[in-house]
Amino acid sequence: MSANSSQPIRVALAGCGTVGTGVLRILVQRGDELYARSGLRFEVAAILERDPTRPRGVAVPHARFVRAPDELDELLVDGSVDVLVEVLGGTDAARHVALAALEKGLPVVTANKALIAIHGRELFDVARRHGTCVAFEASCAGGVPVVAAIQRGLIATRINAVYGIVNGTCNYVLTEMLEKNRSYAEALGEAQRLGYAEADPTLDVDGTDSAHKLAILALLALGADLDVGAIDVEGIQSIHQADLAIARTLGYACKLLAIGLRTDAGLSLRVHPALVPLDHPLARTRGVTAAAVFLGDAMDQLVLSGSGAGSLPTAGAVVSDLVEVACGNARRDFERLPIFREPNRAPPFVPAGDMEYRYYLRCFVDREPNAAAITNILASARVDVDTRTRPDADSVVLITRRVREDDLRAAVAEVRKLVPEPPPVVLRFVEPNGE
Amino acid sequence: MSANSSQPIRVALAGCGTVGTGVLRILVQRGDELYARSGLRFEVAAILERDPTRPRGVAVPHARFVRAPDELDELLVDGSVDVLVEVLGGTDAARHVALAALEKGLPVVTANKALIAIHGRELFDVARRHGTCVAFEASCAGGVPVVAAIQRGLIATRINAVYGIVNGTCNYVLTEMLEKNRSYAEALGEAQRLGYAEADPTLDVDGTDSAHKLAILALLALGADLDVGAIDVEGIQSIHQADLAIARTLGYACKLLAIGLRTDAGLSLRVHPALVPLDHPLARTRGVTAAAVFLGDAMDQLVLSGSGAGSLPTAGAVVSDLVEVACGNARRDFERLPIFREPNRAPPFVPAGDMEYRYYLRCFVDREPNAAAITNILASARVDVDTRTRPDADSVVLITRRVREDDLRAAVAEVRKLVPEPPPVVLRFVEPNGE
Repeated sequence: MSANSSQPIRVALAGCGTVGTGVLRILVQRGDELYARSGLRFEVAAILERDPTRPRGVAVPHARFVRAPDELDELLVDGSVDVLVEVLGGTDAARHVALAALEKGLPVVTANKALIAIHGRELFDVARRHGTCVAFEASCAGGVPVVAAIQRGLIATRINAVYGIVNGTCNYVLTEMLEKNRSYAEALGEAQRLGYAEADPTLDVDGTDSAHKLAILALLALGADLDVGAIDVEGIQSIHQADLAIARTLGYACKLLAIGLRTDAGLSLRVHPALVPLDHPLARTRGVTAAAVFLGDAMDQLVLSGSGAGSLPTAGAVVSDLVEVACGNARRDFERLPIFREPNRAPPFVPAGDMEYRYYLRCFVDREPNAAAITNILASARVDVDTRTRPDADSVVLITRRVREDDLRAAVAEVRKLVPEPPPVVLRFVEPNGE
Repeated sequence: MSANSSQPIRVALAGCGTVGTGVLRILVQRGDELYARSGLRFEVAAILERDPTRPRGVAVPHARFVRAPDELDELLVDGSVDVLVEVLGGTDAARHVALAALEKGLPVVTANKALIAIHGRELFDVARRHGTCVAFEASCAGGVPVVAAIQRGLIATRINAVYGIVNGTCNYVLTEMLEKNRSYAEALGEAQRLGYAEADPTLDVDGTDSAHKLAILALLALGADLDVGAIDVEGIQSIHQADLAIARTLGYACKLLAIGLRTDAGLSLRVHPALVPLDHPLARTRGVTAAAVFLGDAMDQLVLSGSGAGSLPTAGAVVSDLVEVACGNARRDFERLPIFREPNRAPPFVPAGDMEYRYYLRCFVDREPNAAAITNILASARVDVDTRTRPDADSVVLITRRVREDDLRAAVAEVRKLVPEPPPVVLRFVEPNGE
């Protein structure tokens, strides 16, 4: 598909929630403005929405409404649509409509990180077989143009690490817990009331959403294969308000980070709560803002931060993909870029246990002698402790030197033989170089 | 020009200084790596350099060396080159070689902000007439991919303001003055010793370099016409260490900002030292780091920061343009995007005197009664003063409410009738919304 003459590009929009409504606002209400910037015109030809009567504040007189993915399939075959925008969320219906479009040779634009992270390789293969493409600028960081930055401006730059805050719900919860002394449950409830978190926020708080985004960022920036299963994932569910406060007194902020790192042994991909110095840009990333740091050869840290979610910013990213698709850039890049066709060339993944970190370890002390006993356990487990503090009578905080993750895990297992419950709080320090 | 089959793209490199050497390192020493990321191969076919014997640490066995722009012209006509990379700096020879290439239908990639800001419209017109294009990712912020971000990821986003720190020399000088209590002259000397500032740093410190970059950013982000003359420019030459220290006690950092703003009356483009709150990302941008903030519709501030200069980061941006040129994206975008062909559609510029700011005004007091007299002058000139302090016996600092620039200038003229020398230090506060 490529734009020619003055015919508008006909868009099928699958999904009309927050992002979909934003896409409608840009395409329908701001068509002239978009043309003035991009030189292209678009027309919304079809909309898949379960409830077409729901008010969305944008009149779309020429669009055909369908209620089920199967009905959309018919519009994709009859030649009345040039491109599919998938903003349904989830993976089942999204995969169905995306495959249906690609198999008809229609390009697919999606904001759906789970779809790309889990089914990306399948979609890429089908797209290539049918001479079309998949574009996903909005999938990693909403309105922050990380895909454009990596695939365009940084295509000639050797990127050694990418790490950042890519889940707004978690960052909002951690920010509220620290700044307003709220408990995890209170902060999460507030996030739900404000619409930042889903009714079931599990995939946000357990790190799954961040892992999906990391898989995509690592594909683009590090040439990693799309493999969510290779990512070591921890969420924020066991973070206590006390740990955030203690970390701050130590000069650190606790953030849920997605980290992709190129090491001599291969790629390390991880999602976990991490302690970053208070003067680091990620420490200052508050609320639902998303931020990504790129480290490259002889390059200062490149930081991109902005609206990680939200209707118009994310829709802007979706429509930027529509422009790339309509002018043919997306398809040609898709054909040309090795990452879309050569997963077997991807570097190997490094086992999580082989990585080294400095650790923050808060162990609970049920009886006073155990405070000293815990220190001894660590010493005999080859875990060097740098500093040891007693923030309160019930716990001891140990900051280790750099140790192998497997050694640390073994030491924690020993500690739990002494004090089974509650389990120690274990946080990694992440250095500005991403390690 | 478009990449096909397995033929490498033949590059003529005009200039082999810091950036040119970086381009050679990426194209020659890392050709396989670049191919693995981009799917494209390049060959350096010609190098224009006055002194071809100068060691540059990269062997380029197949390149023809020429010493003068005229000699390069011959290589551009004989079909031995596919694209010109211009990294000479300056405008005369740069314009000569760029026009020579474009007139032969060869695309031009440049890192040269002065060339684009001053001669951009001429180059664009010649490029269009000859069916080719000009690309300039490295021109605004070195290794920070601002052009890719604006032209790709943000193409569908309504940008209302772009402002940032785009001159590393000035930011280094201001950072050193504040953090190390150095005088302006000492800090500038240090910047020269470290190679951040030219032997003649005039174009950096007087704001000209920032104005060139702002002209380009405003073209891309705000649809402004390329018109350096429409930019109100002040440099950092009259900033005192004392003002940086006083600003800090008030909760602000003083930075040389380039600011492009869309207002109801038109576009305001300005370069001047500005006071930004200490918790603003730009306040924390230290040394030679570049940073740009974009404000758009319903979008949190989007911040991009990183290596604004440096051999490999800037060369990475240049080579990213080579990739865009080689795969044909650059030419097609150049044909399609209205900003490259319709300067008459650009919004008007707003006169500087019509803008409103809060001002920091440090007036020197030669005789004690003048401190009160100055306050009275401002009051009668319709300049409302919010706070008034006496940092030392010799000066009074007045922070105004928002006032029109013309009114402020009139008031300062009155103050200078009372105390002609030294002239008051006048700094604008810039709010997070760019106003």
